[in-house]
Amino acid sequence: MARDTLAERVLRGDRAAVARAITKVENREEGSAELLETIGKKLGGAFVFGVTGPPGTGKSTLIDRLIEEYRKAGVRVGVIAVDPTSPITGGALLGDRVRMVKHATDEGVFIRSMASRGWSGGLSGAISEAIQILDAAGTEVVIIETVGIGQSDIEVMKIVHAVMVVTMPGLGDDIQVSKAGLMEIGDIYAVNKSDLPGADSMVINLLGMVRDMKGRSPPVLKVSALRGEGVAALFTAVERIRSKVLSPEGRDVRLKSTQGMIAELAKRRVLDRFEGRAESSRELAKKVENREISMEEAARELAEGR
Amino acid sequence: MARDTLAERVLRGDRAAVARAITKVENREEGSAELLETIGKKLGGAFVFGVTGPPGTGKSTLIDRLIEEYRKAGVRVGVIAVDPTSPITGGALLGDRVRMVKHATDEGVFIRSMASRGWSGGLSGAISEAIQILDAAGTEVVIIETVGIGQSDIEVMKIVHAVMVVTMPGLGDDIQVSKAGLMEIGDIYAVNKSDLPGADSMVINLLGMVRDMKGRSPPVLKVSALRGEGVAALFTAVERIRSKVLSPEGRDVRLKSTQGMIAELAKRRVLDRFEGRAESSRELAKKVENREISMEEAARELAEGR
Repeated sequence: MARDTLAERVLRGDRAAVARAITKVENREEGSAELLETIGKKLGGAFVFGVTGPPGTGKSTLIDRLIEEYRKAGVRVGVIAVDPTSPITGGALLGDRVRMVKHATDEGVFIRSMASRGWSGGLSGAISEAIQILDAAGTEVVIIETVGIGQSDIEVMKIVHAVMVVTMPGLGDDIQVSKAGLMEIGDIYAVNKSDLPGADSMVINLLGMVRDMKGRSPPVLKVSALRGEGVAALFTAVERIRSKVLSPEGRDVRLKSTQGMIAELAKRRVLDRFEGRAESSRELAKKVENREISMEEAARELAEGR
Repeated sequence: MARDTLAERVLRGDRAAVARAITKVENREEGSAELLETIGKKLGGAFVFGVTGPPGTGKSTLIDRLIEEYRKAGVRVGVIAVDPTSPITGGALLGDRVRMVKHATDEGVFIRSMASRGWSGGLSGAISEAIQILDAAGTEVVIIETVGIGQSDIEVMKIVHAVMVVTMPGLGDDIQVSKAGLMEIGDIYAVNKSDLPGADSMVINLLGMVRDMKGRSPPVLKVSALRGEGVAALFTAVERIRSKVLSPEGRDVRLKSTQGMIAELAKRRVLDRFEGRAESSRELAKKVENREISMEEAARELAEGR
């Protein structure tokens, strides 16, 4: 009864209900599966947009600017910020962002930090679910912000429709961007803090680098999120990508994203089952330590659930 | 026949054979399982030491200094540097390290970069195997270097016997270290580049922070890897940890590491099987896109292998 009410409230776009639903699913509370089952039939087809880049490039400020543009256009936006996780506390260390306060009175904006927890690495326990909940609540654009450099960026590629890589001048000859494999995942590149020296040459370098990738020449745009310069042009470029993704032309991209989300959800199911067995693997470890069995044998036994 | 020969050469401590064996296992070539089965029965019990910390703190240089100390003491050392992976090329982007050249003529040193690849995130496809191969080849100390900040650090904790966190003055009020959860995983802390201003206050700050953790007060040592200052003291502290781990007192730590390695190996087996199914998940994604089934149903079907 109470569950139906929560799902209904989510479907009505109630922001508090969305927050509650995400928490419920994140903590795998009872009724999570039913909730997802209900809202899963009412998905609207939100545009899922990944924003990534090295730390300190101003991703959050830039996302704030995009939120402002979207709100001017009357578009409902959700942001999921994926935080690195403490191995001990399991919590999101960066915590909820300052900007949550800024948009506190706007029912058309939803912002949430989620930890990229899980012994298996990869995405947060419930990002795919959170996207569904936001989508069902009528959110038209869901932005997934990752903390740059690392596995979560690679994983996020598989469930978003498009990726914006944020960088800035002075990051050691653009090496950081190329090191982290970010040259290969962007559908659009933003050189933020464009008032700093080296912005123009960085744009030129990036254009050269991303041109190298076969068949792709994603736009590279200079922007100053802080001063608001270049934001309108960046927004236009992002909106162009959104239109394309949501058009018949974008069918393959959407299908791949759905596939990625299903795989993420299914993987978690498989690993959950397996993790239970891993907990009881101490006996196998003892046998290996005593040289009774090899590590390979132990792994096989554990994998087969014996 | 050739396989036995490779295993035998590994067991004799032949460095080229070790390199070949790791490549074989990394690429999952035929005969890998047999190789691991053979060497898995001849493990010597190497000390597995994780070294991590934010990028740019000089981890590699510091590890080089430790290698020098170990070689003076006649101890055989192996280093596995875990690199971030390109989502496209799958390769280790940082490539093999310059220092490989430096130790090229020393048969007692083995250095290898490995990619932290895998759709599931987490550790490299073959780190646990590489540790076994190095151990079987008579390596007494295996250092696992991770590129700081990120999931691989968290995963590495589960298979190493102890962790050294490398940091340096001027990292924004020590925030980077605490943000990344590194305050919680170190068995020893090195403040590198101790000639920079702020080194002493950083040591004091860190001592305060790590003292907060219940029951633990890991050493915090100032060092300049470049100038060689403080290296002897650091080496002594690391050796103290190694003695403890390899003593009867360290039994639990060793067991936990073995358990972590078994879990890592088993997890890969499970995910491999599952990944094959995920590849054929396109049909399920289509059904979801056509609103024939919910994403939860699709995930369930995929997880159950239907």
